[in-house]
Amino acid sequence: MKKHRIGIVGVSGYGGGEALRLCVNHPHFEVVYVSGESSAGTKLAERFPSLPEPVASLVIAKWDPAALPPLDMLFASLPTGESTDSLAKVPADVRIVDIGGDHRFKPGWVYGLADVWPDRIRGATRVANPGCYPAATLSALAPLFAGKLVSPHDVIIDAKSGVSGAGRGGGGSNFGYSEVNEDVAAYGLLKHAHVPEMNAALSELCGGNVSVVFTPHLIPMTRGILSTIYLKGNLTTEQCLSAARSLYKDRPSVKVTEKPPHTKWALGTNQVFISYAADAGRELVVALGAIDNLGKGAAGQAVQNANLMLELEATIGLEGIALWP
Amino acid sequence: MKKHRIGIVGVSGYGGGEALRLCVNHPHFEVVYVSGESSAGTKLAERFPSLPEPVASLVIAKWDPAALPPLDMLFASLPTGESTDSLAKVPADVRIVDIGGDHRFKPGWVYGLADVWPDRIRGATRVANPGCYPAATLSALAPLFAGKLVSPHDVIIDAKSGVSGAGRGGGGSNFGYSEVNEDVAAYGLLKHAHVPEMNAALSELCGGNVSVVFTPHLIPMTRGILSTIYLKGNLTTEQCLSAARSLYKDRPSVKVTEKPPHTKWALGTNQVFISYAADAGRELVVALGAIDNLGKGAAGQAVQNANLMLELEATIGLEGIALWP
Amino acid sequence: MKKHRIGIVGVSGYGGGEALRLCVNHPHFEVVYVSGESSAGTKLAERFPSLPEPVASLVIAKWDPAALPPLDMLFASLPTGESTDSLAKVPADVRIVDIGGDHRFKPGWVYGLADVWPDRIRGATRVANPGCYPAATLSALAPLFAGKLVSPHDVIIDAKSGVSGAGRGGGGSNFGYSEVNEDVAAYGLLKHAHVPEMNAALSELCGGNVSVVFTPHLIPMTRGILSTIYLKGNLTTEQCLSAARSLYKDRPSVKVTEKPPHTKWALGTNQVFISYAADAGRELVVALGAIDNLGKGAAGQAVQNANLMLELEATIGLEGIALWP
Amino acid sequence: MKKHRIGIVGVSGYGGGEALRLCVNHPHFEVVYVSGESSAGTKLAERFPSLPEPVASLVIAKWDPAALPPLDMLFASLPTGESTDSLAKVPADVRIVDIGGDHRFKPGWVYGLADVWPDRIRGATRVANPGCYPAATLSALAPLFAGKLVSPHDVIIDAKSGVSGAGRGGGGSNFGYSEVNEDVAAYGLLKHAHVPEMNAALSELCGGNVSVVFTPHLIPMTRGILSTIYLKGNLTTEQCLSAARSLYKDRPSVKVTEKPPHTKWALGTNQVFISYAADAGRELVVALGAIDNLGKGAAGQAVQNANLMLELEATIGLEGIALWP
Repeated sequence: MKKHRIGIVGVSGYGGGEALRLCVNHPHFEVVYVSGESSAGTKLAERFPSLPEPVASLVIAKWDPAALPPLDMLFASLPTGESTDSLAKVPADVRIVDIGGDHRFKPGWVYGLADVWPDRIRGATRVANPGCYPAATLSALAPLFAGKLVSPHDVIIDAKSGVSGAGRGGGGSNFGYSEVNEDVAAYGLLKHAHVPEMNAALSELCGGNVSVVFTPHLIPMTRGILSTIYLKGNLTTEQCLSAARSLYKDRPSVKVTEKPPHTKWALGTNQVFISYAADAGRELVVALGAIDNLGKGAAGQAVQNANLMLELEATIGLEGIALWP
Repeated sequence: MKKHRIGIVGVSGYGGGEALRLCVNHPHFEVVYVSGESSAGTKLAERFPSLPEPVASLVIAKWDPAALPPLDMLFASLPTGESTDSLAKVPADVRIVDIGGDHRFKPGWVYGLADVWPDRIRGATRVANPGCYPAATLSALAPLFAGKLVSPHDVIIDAKSGVSGAGRGGGGSNFGYSEVNEDVAAYGLLKHAHVPEMNAALSELCGGNVSVVFTPHLIPMTRGILSTIYLKGNLTTEQCLSAARSLYKDRPSVKVTEKPPHTKWALGTNQVFISYAADAGRELVVALGAIDNLGKGAAGQAVQNANLMLELEATIGLEGIALWP
Repeated sequence: MKKHRIGIVGVSGYGGGEALRLCVNHPHFEVVYVSGESSAGTKLAERFPSLPEPVASLVIAKWDPAALPPLDMLFASLPTGESTDSLAKVPADVRIVDIGGDHRFKPGWVYGLADVWPDRIRGATRVANPGCYPAATLSALAPLFAGKLVSPHDVIIDAKSGVSGAGRGGGGSNFGYSEVNEDVAAYGLLKHAHVPEMNAALSELCGGNVSVVFTPHLIPMTRGILSTIYLKGNLTTEQCLSAARSLYKDRPSVKVTEKPPHTKWALGTNQVFISYAADAGRELVVALGAIDNLGKGAAGQAVQNANLMLELEATIGLEGIALWP
Repeated sequence: MKKHRIGIVGVSGYGGGEALRLCVNHPHFEVVYVSGESSAGTKLAERFPSLPEPVASLVIAKWDPAALPPLDMLFASLPTGESTDSLAKVPADVRIVDIGGDHRFKPGWVYGLADVWPDRIRGATRVANPGCYPAATLSALAPLFAGKLVSPHDVIIDAKSGVSGAGRGGGGSNFGYSEVNEDVAAYGLLKHAHVPEMNAALSELCGGNVSVVFTPHLIPMTRGILSTIYLKGNLTTEQCLSAARSLYKDRPSVKVTEKPPHTKWALGTNQVFISYAADAGRELVVALGAIDNLGKGAAGQAVQNANLMLELEATIGLEGIALWP
């Protein structure tokens, strides 16, 4: 089988680097173009010493949509605000998954929540990959909202993220080892950029008008997001689990578990682990979603979307199991 | 000034060890008795190599309440369930702070929430130290509940704790470095042991009948707890901050901050940092409390309680500032 | 192509677990038997939640060499001292790679230093996998010793290992998160169990009688070993690099680098990164070897050995690149 | 007793911040002046939230030696290369401890190896504080070199440092959490800036001409240095320990231990732990020194030097014991 020709924009960032790792291992992909900013002009091997040849010797280009080689698929991982103009210049026959934040719920772009809406993505040419927090959160909420099993009001999302979510170099010395180690804090209280995205997706799922409360936290680890979500609803733990098992029965990258999931279960994978605990007497549901923020939260889901766009099996190239310990 | 004679039960655990560190540095305390289990018979210096003489050569005794030397104050840090019988045998003239969980809201024991109810503690002889999660949480909630500024219903507490909260050896290989590193998970969903304690304290503060929802999480760090609390109430951020500044105006170990607090700000100290963000339009309040779980969450508050019981300044011996970075 | 039938003894340990991860991803392997101690009787998915079916439902057996199903290859990862008797009972037609320490340089067993002596391993039926410290160290030293470029005397090896090298549950509370975090120490001074293995391999390589000085250190990370080695020899950095490039020119899992290697470059892979710095004027050579202790230091090299034993390409199933960050 | 008036230059860096922490807790010191670069104009409490008043409200000045208030002692923690000119302008009656690297073994400055040469420091007005690697290394080597017990040749120093040694913001994204976590590497092979300092100190100690081999490593922790040193000498472990106990018998911040020391034993303190293992038959000695790089490796030793310069007890303000865990 002929391999699809793949390009990656922003390869020296964390999301782009993870896309590279997955694409190099992908049986139907061939990485033929990579671009970066500070790293432009150097070989990929300087930044990714474990790469095999010939991709190790690929030279990182300066990003220029007018200078692309023939490509089947382009993964774009650019800082928020920097992709709208340049991606508009990419030829129409080059499919794009935008891992960055500029095209979510924007006209002309399909929102790539791949385990929930695969049919919208199959064959699409422009897909906006979900943000990392939404990926963890929506995976756990979709079964409840799609089934209108919980109230669309009083949705409280308390999320804990590893540091790589801030991107490479993001935030300067705030993300230095010495600052992050032995520390946890909330940030972006009542105003995080991912809130509109979660509201839009949840509103569409339940047909209502959802406005979530969202508090992200930074914790001392490199990869992983756990989203703990508090909901109102008169249902049992078993009903929650059943709804999830039903929605995701043909989605091998979603695992419904009875125990509270650990982010480490997903380390290095495209999987999402979801679970629930409900107290029907109090009409309370706690939903949990655990991912690798660079896997299902970024590059893993991007490759899953690419597979769908290219009419491949959704999970091809994503079968690796988690690193343990 | 003559020094108070101090004993520490459970000195080889994390809480007992931190009590030792604070008592050794305390200008009015002299540690004359320490007990442990597995470490009994060895000198303190074997476990705490940085101790100066003469305390370094103090031999760890097997815990036996009938064999105590004359003491002014005993800090007890025993596993939950193991202190009720043995502490009952301690002579009445030996004051006790129970860092463990057996005597909270029990007859004959004052609940030692030292920054909120110092007058109850001053001169008391039996004080039950708050749990680590309640210490972080109640510090942030007391101003709002004491002023009846928020609803007693729909209190959602999402807490993140470092691993030392599980105690030394607690949980076996679940708390091994390789298991905890690069991981976060919730545990004890809808049934953690600290819930009744928080309910009791909050109910007393507001005169109502509070039943909180509480989800603890384990994150990869040694020390620190951040409690993120979601409340219903029609008030502004500034009103929350004012209520806190007013309640704690003479409490130097409580710091009210405008920025979301970091647990690292409290590392190695008895301080608690609290902050708030409110959205009056949605009647939503987010309260935050950050501590060192072995400081305000255990031994620090225990020494503060001891100071009050001995009619000393509450903060003596606790003035050290946080380690940074 | 028919898949080889694989068994893994000690699957719930770190080495066995990594062997499982690699074998599940291996295109020519099918895991049909796994055994464990404490985990016997449970499904693999309970310990490895990211496993796909059908291997997820494989039940962990109690280890019993008399009750093996038909197998082509058995990976044994048993505690040192526990494998000699039981592996002797494995049928002769079942190939064995012993990841444990009992058969290194023992009669009837080939020492599986796969990048140095692949011809000895090809077609062998009993292979003793190198220890983790020797794997990092010998990879860097083989080019210099095989070429007699350095003195066999005054070999000083200073190695730094992540905690997983101690094995799961190994050492009890000494390897708790709170103990290991923010700490480094040497151990086993002048008497580590891996010294005879390194002496034997180096003596064979140079035809001399080598007796190394070896100091292992435990550092706060989960995976990785860096071995820093000090040697006497009148040669330049470039001569060292050339010798290494020459010896390893057809060994894609060995990467010779000009910069000092990072263990993170190897994270999750079977690669080893080696480098050198020499000061000819002082007759001093510093050699460096960096690996993932569970990759080239255990399960990765074990799979490489299995590939050779089964007359497959050495690198099959081991092409994955390192996790970053 | 009247308190000494203290100034700290570079207070927003790690070394300056630790000096602040120690000086605020010092019974005879009063911090009256602090300066910084990026933080100039803000109150100290913004960077150090746990500070008590009145020092919390001290405003960070732009560093200007011509605008100093009356001071008894100035701690200077400036980047290497930036202190020579400006410290020359400080009035002669202001004592200076230069924590930075510009004045070590320079005319007019006493080298502040406080546990080895306290008499040189007592009453001095200009003291150059040792570097962090030398502090760990020389503490362990001084007894052997002062007694000419080991060869001055073939001194190999393999040191492991936490990340704070690079300074705040030092190295940009190389010291980001995601880069440092799960990684170890050597750097500065055969050419680190601290080599001349160690050579000078050791040469003076033994009256010879010492030229050490030194390899520093960065490991994933915030604080701590362990120096593992390989020496030639015909002596026993007990002879090494005796020499150390003898030299340091009145130095409470040096602890001679029989077990290999852990850096965590020194966390947050000015202590150094040293130990030895010798193999007389091979004429081999392994020496170990463990410190907190910001304690004995920087600000702790600086305060010790200041105490000596001010004719105070060397250990005043430095009695705190290590944080555990």
